[in-house]
Amino acid sequence: MSSVRVGMIGYKFMGKAHSNAYRSVPMFFPQAVKPEMSVICGRDPKGVKEAQEQFGWQESVTDWRELVTREDIDLIDINAPSDVHKEIAIAAAQAGKHIFCEKPLALNLKDSREMLEAAETAGIKHMIGFNYRFSPAVQLAKDLVESGRLGKIYHFRANFLQDWILDPEFPLVWRLQKEIAGSGSHGDLGAHLIDMARYLVGEFTEVIGMSETFIKERPIASEMTGLTAKGNSNTEKGPVTVDDATLFLARFESGAIGSFEATRFAAGHRSTNSFEINGSLGSVKFDFERMNELEVYFVNDAEDVQGFRRVMATDGVHKYAEAWWPTGHPIGFDHTFTHEVVEFMNAIEEDRQPVPNFHDGVACQAVLEAVERSVEERRWVTLSEMAED
Amino acid sequence: MSSVRVGMIGYKFMGKAHSNAYRSVPMFFPQAVKPEMSVICGRDPKGVKEAQEQFGWQESVTDWRELVTREDIDLIDINAPSDVHKEIAIAAAQAGKHIFCEKPLALNLKDSREMLEAAETAGIKHMIGFNYRFSPAVQLAKDLVESGRLGKIYHFRANFLQDWILDPEFPLVWRLQKEIAGSGSHGDLGAHLIDMARYLVGEFTEVIGMSETFIKERPIASEMTGLTAKGNSNTEKGPVTVDDATLFLARFESGAIGSFEATRFAAGHRSTNSFEINGSLGSVKFDFERMNELEVYFVNDAEDVQGFRRVMATDGVHKYAEAWWPTGHPIGFDHTFTHEVVEFMNAIEEDRQPVPNFHDGVACQAVLEAVERSVEERRWVTLSEMAED
Amino acid sequence: MSSVRVGMIGYKFMGKAHSNAYRSVPMFFPQAVKPEMSVICGRDPKGVKEAQEQFGWQESVTDWRELVTREDIDLIDINAPSDVHKEIAIAAAQAGKHIFCEKPLALNLKDSREMLEAAETAGIKHMIGFNYRFSPAVQLAKDLVESGRLGKIYHFRANFLQDWILDPEFPLVWRLQKEIAGSGSHGDLGAHLIDMARYLVGEFTEVIGMSETFIKERPIASEMTGLTAKGNSNTEKGPVTVDDATLFLARFESGAIGSFEATRFAAGHRSTNSFEINGSLGSVKFDFERMNELEVYFVNDAEDVQGFRRVMATDGVHKYAEAWWPTGHPIGFDHTFTHEVVEFMNAIEEDRQPVPNFHDGVACQAVLEAVERSVEERRWVTLSEMAED
Amino acid sequence: MSSVRVGMIGYKFMGKAHSNAYRSVPMFFPQAVKPEMSVICGRDPKGVKEAQEQFGWQESVTDWRELVTREDIDLIDINAPSDVHKEIAIAAAQAGKHIFCEKPLALNLKDSREMLEAAETAGIKHMIGFNYRFSPAVQLAKDLVESGRLGKIYHFRANFLQDWILDPEFPLVWRLQKEIAGSGSHGDLGAHLIDMARYLVGEFTEVIGMSETFIKERPIASEMTGLTAKGNSNTEKGPVTVDDATLFLARFESGAIGSFEATRFAAGHRSTNSFEINGSLGSVKFDFERMNELEVYFVNDAEDVQGFRRVMATDGVHKYAEAWWPTGHPIGFDHTFTHEVVEFMNAIEEDRQPVPNFHDGVACQAVLEAVERSVEERRWVTLSEMAED
Repeated sequence: MSSVRVGMIGYKFMGKAHSNAYRSVPMFFPQAVKPEMSVICGRDPKGVKEAQEQFGWQESVTDWRELVTREDIDLIDINAPSDVHKEIAIAAAQAGKHIFCEKPLALNLKDSREMLEAAETAGIKHMIGFNYRFSPAVQLAKDLVESGRLGKIYHFRANFLQDWILDPEFPLVWRLQKEIAGSGSHGDLGAHLIDMARYLVGEFTEVIGMSETFIKERPIASEMTGLTAKGNSNTEKGPVTVDDATLFLARFESGAIGSFEATRFAAGHRSTNSFEINGSLGSVKFDFERMNELEVYFVNDAEDVQGFRRVMATDGVHKYAEAWWPTGHPIGFDHTFTHEVVEFMNAIEEDRQPVPNFHDGVACQAVLEAVERSVEERRWVTLSEMAED
Repeated sequence: MSSVRVGMIGYKFMGKAHSNAYRSVPMFFPQAVKPEMSVICGRDPKGVKEAQEQFGWQESVTDWRELVTREDIDLIDINAPSDVHKEIAIAAAQAGKHIFCEKPLALNLKDSREMLEAAETAGIKHMIGFNYRFSPAVQLAKDLVESGRLGKIYHFRANFLQDWILDPEFPLVWRLQKEIAGSGSHGDLGAHLIDMARYLVGEFTEVIGMSETFIKERPIASEMTGLTAKGNSNTEKGPVTVDDATLFLARFESGAIGSFEATRFAAGHRSTNSFEINGSLGSVKFDFERMNELEVYFVNDAEDVQGFRRVMATDGVHKYAEAWWPTGHPIGFDHTFTHEVVEFMNAIEEDRQPVPNFHDGVACQAVLEAVERSVEERRWVTLSEMAED
Repeated sequence: MSSVRVGMIGYKFMGKAHSNAYRSVPMFFPQAVKPEMSVICGRDPKGVKEAQEQFGWQESVTDWRELVTREDIDLIDINAPSDVHKEIAIAAAQAGKHIFCEKPLALNLKDSREMLEAAETAGIKHMIGFNYRFSPAVQLAKDLVESGRLGKIYHFRANFLQDWILDPEFPLVWRLQKEIAGSGSHGDLGAHLIDMARYLVGEFTEVIGMSETFIKERPIASEMTGLTAKGNSNTEKGPVTVDDATLFLARFESGAIGSFEATRFAAGHRSTNSFEINGSLGSVKFDFERMNELEVYFVNDAEDVQGFRRVMATDGVHKYAEAWWPTGHPIGFDHTFTHEVVEFMNAIEEDRQPVPNFHDGVACQAVLEAVERSVEERRWVTLSEMAED
Repeated sequence: MSSVRVGMIGYKFMGKAHSNAYRSVPMFFPQAVKPEMSVICGRDPKGVKEAQEQFGWQESVTDWRELVTREDIDLIDINAPSDVHKEIAIAAAQAGKHIFCEKPLALNLKDSREMLEAAETAGIKHMIGFNYRFSPAVQLAKDLVESGRLGKIYHFRANFLQDWILDPEFPLVWRLQKEIAGSGSHGDLGAHLIDMARYLVGEFTEVIGMSETFIKERPIASEMTGLTAKGNSNTEKGPVTVDDATLFLARFESGAIGSFEATRFAAGHRSTNSFEINGSLGSVKFDFERMNELEVYFVNDAEDVQGFRRVMATDGVHKYAEAWWPTGHPIGFDHTFTHEVVEFMNAIEEDRQPVPNFHDGVACQAVLEAVERSVEERRWVTLSEMAED
């Protein structure tokens, strides 16, 4: 197989990031199977046509149902709004297409499971867009854990802190409405933390959480987009139906314990996506705002020179780094998506499931919902309880 | 009043820190009432005599009961082991002495309340040793909160991370035995975080926590001291009866929410005592390992230059700073105790209670126990529930 | 004009970076004139053909002389080895093509001046590849200087520290040979610092420098590339004919003074390209390893909260930032080249010279040579002296 | 010998720092010979009497000539203004007293040499107050250099940046007057950098420097003290006769090269006293504002985890650290003076010269003057040239 023909549904923020990734693979990872930018799909004919030209797709269409059955398409990329993921994914799976679905997999656990089942039944390759895994510094953290260099893991603590809705006059965009977004900071930001925890520390056993919506009502937006909104003179307000912040504590199968916080009310934090792992032999710290760096500590370093090392994960030895620039030259947010696509292309070539895939999407959703249930019922909720639902 | 005659009970780590503080007040804060280093008291005659000479006390004695009733003593300083705080404090109060008691006030809430009651009944001045409040950088944080410059507080998150018992062969010192220490990381480290939260954000309303003892058994120590232990060839092990780590979530009366973690298993963290506050108008970050610094963010800074400022709290304008060295010259851990004593001396002169005092000790203990109860009963515990006990 | 047809000469490290930039402009800066990736040119037919396909050029050729006169080409991009810049640039200018030339403009000041003269005579647009100017954080620094917010500038200090040739067994690659590279760390790294200084502080008046070659001989490389070399069993050694490190002091027309250091022997520094500016009203600090950040200090901040702010230059208000990802999401090294091309495209559309251009290349070369002369003659060398040569 | 009876001349900023050190030695370093705080001496009877009481000296006097010959005094501590160091030191040496002299040793090289000669002739112990050497983190750096763990040293770069006279209206205090201070930022701050370089890298061979006085005239101060000045309504101005900033480049006997900058015009830097060393096997970085930390890099760390380690030099293994607080608890500026006195006490007990001593004071002065000469004569000046003077 020399190329994979992609049909992509959605063309906003994530559509742009994915398009850039498809474009970049052949240039920076020429050994990988080439993703062909065949068809882009969106509801608005004018908008999708513009995106087609701007992003470099061969064709644009408006009907995703038709797209997912086209014979000249091998892979469906879903970055449309979360509430339509399920329907598209199941149709694509049934049509035998590989699927690259943005997170969250679906709005709830039940839907996620149906998607996974459809994908497994169809025998297709499926992937979910937890892009932060693909920072070389995170890959290094993974390698340190896997190789045992951090020893037995005791602690995982992670925060995803933003401040974009701190202003009470910031309008009621779709991300603040439960029926469209499914969840607030928890599903949007916390999901990334949960995935990172599962990737690095393993499965959760139980959780207990706390949520808060600090600003209960906001001006109704005249035009709603993802992270921004057109200002308006509208003084009418509507209710915010998602969480502004969600925190939770957790236990893992391995015996490790964890602490998680996702908030959009942390003044000064544009997008601090950070975690720390403490093991019996060492620790690592990561903050996506300095995504090229991993801080690493080893218990067995010589006694007088023990300390966290600031490792730039840009050396040839670091995963994905050699494809880019000389050592010490930073890469950015967009490069994580390119690495994601490389993983998917490699998985197709090697006839294996890419990682992370729909299993990870389901598992993440189970933790998200366990936390939500623990918030509602004010009690610890086990993951086995979720499994029995 | 030109001087306050101090009788100090205890002469280990904290006894040394307090002695140094008493010595330093007249030199660096000559305007303050002078604490006179009258009598030091300890059970071991040889040990206390050596401490007297080394630390510069006028006299040493071995019987605290006698000491607390001496007419030539105005203030009793209690830094003996936690399990004797109560008895000494009540006797001292009844003898009409002012009391400076190291934290924790007592081993449990009930005892703490009795101590407070005794002190209040006696009408003496009482103080508790939450020394971290007295870092100039923390004083700056307090001022930013109090003056409203951070706006309404949404988040408080705090960690006290150490790694001194990470080695499973580290022996079973007294701090790992519940009957002497009362609690593990929670009472030792978490107490400081709780006090800081109360100081900066206000009263707690409810909490839920999680505890873990990662290493259940350790070699029995032949000689036990605070943070270190004499090695021995003993292979006999005994049970660790306190928590290695305790985490909890909390709500505050103000509407703020909080996250807390205290652990002795965070490899690479010698003593990371850190907190962050996020408000509607700004944020602050503090880490005691860099105790001279406070990171400060303001929402209303000019749009293109918003960012956390690294403020060195060593300028003349910063509380306590002018007494020391020129701006930019760091102070250390010991200076916080000197500031504590200054506060106590000033309170005596101004005939007011010093802050923090036994009320703060009781309130801290209530939160500690609420967390413990929440861990045992796996549920949210309110502070009003504790008040009713 | 709707597009600019580019013919690019060179296809190694910089050829890849430039190609990526041309590809990215239409996608991320759709308002800009579109650079068309017409022809890529290199001496090795197989190599350049591969590059054409990998990087996405329409055609590949091997004869640059033919290329520079083609009617279907508007702009010549020169990133071939430094020793051929001059010949190509003059030919391209004479053919009326716009020129984007990688730094250094030429191997010496005399050649640089000839190139500038040819470009000016031909009336074409010319640009030189000082890409670090195009980090949004550097753009912010420029704005702070220009707007007077830093006041009168007193100090500029800059370091470009690398460690890739620290190992004495690292082979004698072309960058270590004067006849090809022209200069060592001074021309390669120092040139960037000099350009940054001129951009932010203005013209130099005099300099005095010091150079050192720590490792005088190295194994002759069997195959030489830019920053890496194929290992070999060759034990034969040849002389290193460029500087491993060059430091210099400087005065500026504005009255500011500066300190500069470029070295390839700073263990632990993969590519620390940093500067600091101190003015009467404020300071800024920048390090390319954290290229999304600028540290900013203002003298007139409130007295108790003065400190360097860590500004993430990823907000909408920061130049070029809005074209990329949401605030707080880092960009990387490659994005600086995209911004460079945007500047060139805008300059063509607005019929003005892009900045930086050959004037800047000449001025930088004059400082480089003034430093070299000062090293040889062990004396201060003025820039007016260089002008008179 | 059980104690050393000290007579101290001077009682301002340094007198306070020294007094605190003498007081602290018996408490924190009880094994050391005890310095007895016998006599404090100053010109103003009232001032010195107050200082005596505040700092805890047994007696105060106003005539240093009498003091230096008293039989009940073993050691003379000189922290009076720099212009009287020489006369006092020579008299004290002739009287057979050990001498602890604050830096600078004298106002010029010639005087320094006379002082050294007098001390050597008298056979007394002599020390000079380069206190920054005594930070545990600097001691660690020294150990890493000495033990060869950094390999052959290539680079030393050091800055001492302050901003206390940035305001042009800051008055003309004595530190800005050449006849009293001898020198400006160069002698005050640069001297510390030079000493650090000599301590860590060895002897200088040649230097070339540049000086600037940015603000040529300042309001005449009505009352002058060290780092501060009483404001006044005086609008009369006088000339600043010392340097605001001095930078220089240097070569060392070892083959290393260095860069130095001392300035009082670096906005935002209260007292950044920093250096970095790059060797063939590793690097270290230090900044006194974070004096408890040393950043350490090793070339031979495992390939994927190379990076600067942030080492807290507060572990038991770090020199002087065990005497203070548990690991991770910061010490401050004052502790460096205590360590200095410990070194002097130990040297007396072991009958050896303390380090640093007058030899170091002379050597530092030689470099200072070589730089000054290089500034005046605009040329490289060798240290052997200075030796021949």
